[in-house]
Amino acid sequence: MKFSDCQTAPSPRRVRMFIAEKGAQIPTVQVDLRNGEQLTPAFRKLNPRCTVPVLELDDGVCLNDTLAICHYLESRFPTPNLMGEDAREQALVMNWHEQILTEGFMAGGEALRNFSKGFKDRALTGAVGYAQIPELAERGRQRLEVFMDVLDARLADHSWVAIDRFTLADIGAFVCTDFASWVKLPVMERWPNIRRWFEAIAQRPSASV
Amino acid sequence: MKFSDCQTAPSPRRVRMFIAEKGAQIPTVQVDLRNGEQLTPAFRKLNPRCTVPVLELDDGVCLNDTLAICHYLESRFPTPNLMGEDAREQALVMNWHEQILTEGFMAGGEALRNFSKGFKDRALTGAVGYAQIPELAERGRQRLEVFMDVLDARLADHSWVAIDRFTLADIGAFVCTDFASWVKLPVMERWPNIRRWFEAIAQRPSASV
Repeated sequence: MKFSDCQTAPSPRRVRMFIAEKGAQIPTVQVDLRNGEQLTPAFRKLNPRCTVPVLELDDGVCLNDTLAICHYLESRFPTPNLMGEDAREQALVMNWHEQILTEGFMAGGEALRNFSKGFKDRALTGAVGYAQIPELAERGRQRLEVFMDVLDARLADHSWVAIDRFTLADIGAFVCTDFASWVKLPVMERWPNIRRWFEAIAQRPSASV
Repeated sequence: MKFSDCQTAPSPRRVRMFIAEKGAQIPTVQVDLRNGEQLTPAFRKLNPRCTVPVLELDDGVCLNDTLAICHYLESRFPTPNLMGEDAREQALVMNWHEQILTEGFMAGGEALRNFSKGFKDRALTGAVGYAQIPELAERGRQRLEVFMDVLDARLADHSWVAIDRFTLADIGAFVCTDFASWVKLPVMERWPNIRRWFEAIAQRPSASV
């Protein structure tokens, strides 16, 4: 296996944390997103979607979706369990993963990429250069705030996001919460339940890899 | 279990097809999206995201993400397998499911909901009313065309989307392709490989439920 990572980007950080929680050793290469390495012909062969993370399996198949990558790694490194022990738990982790992706990460990505000059004509990840839409930056920020309300309410009476222990859903929500600082959302000041949960996860060695 | 469906909406159709392929019998209720039933207090108790599909489990837990719902149903009704037999196959189905969701369904949704008068101030599903952004309708349509290029290229040398047999990925891509007609994208004329594959799936009894 080979893991294509980027140390500065939020999406592959989820996989990096997942691997660290497993204590797995997987050959890893850094992709230089800042200089457009993801758009080169060599990288497109690995992932025509021009995104990280990518996990290349030993037979050459490349996965480029975080959930798919983590599902595969969970089967290869079953301990500790991070995606649920039975179908019900697994479905809850997946359901939260999707909500964190679409309402958290995508909202934050919209807010950042439609605003920051660094993403001019790169408002979406991928091979096609899309122009920024300023209204979408505003909407993304609003959606991210709505998502933080949802997450905070969940954590008011749950120790962890999806089930009664730390899972991939916590990894996703943790990375998303940290990412919110990129769009200057003061999460720690405004959402106390998120803060308590976030500070506990920040102590784990996987949070620093 | 109880399945909350809407006969006229593309997202729950994926679950409806999945259930039909399994030959499962699951108590089903129709949610009247046209008249805003998804925004009522009663429905919000089931799903605060105000979307369908929803699968309510026997212990009262409600799933509202298609992948999570199908993963749970796959474990309850394992035959025929629709999500992969081993971790590698499962990861491929999941990876395609996510690509179909983000590049297909979401693009089509952007194109439709930011354009059609019927979705004024309802540009996104969910509890919050967001204003339409006309540039997003255009971008959504462009993205949907890019996705159809990707899907057509995949089907040029593969009989099925994710692995070597019919899976949830084919269900998702089929429903998404049919949904493209809502934004007047002439898929059958422009993408011959999609057409061949689509017409084969359209023969299955599950395509008509």
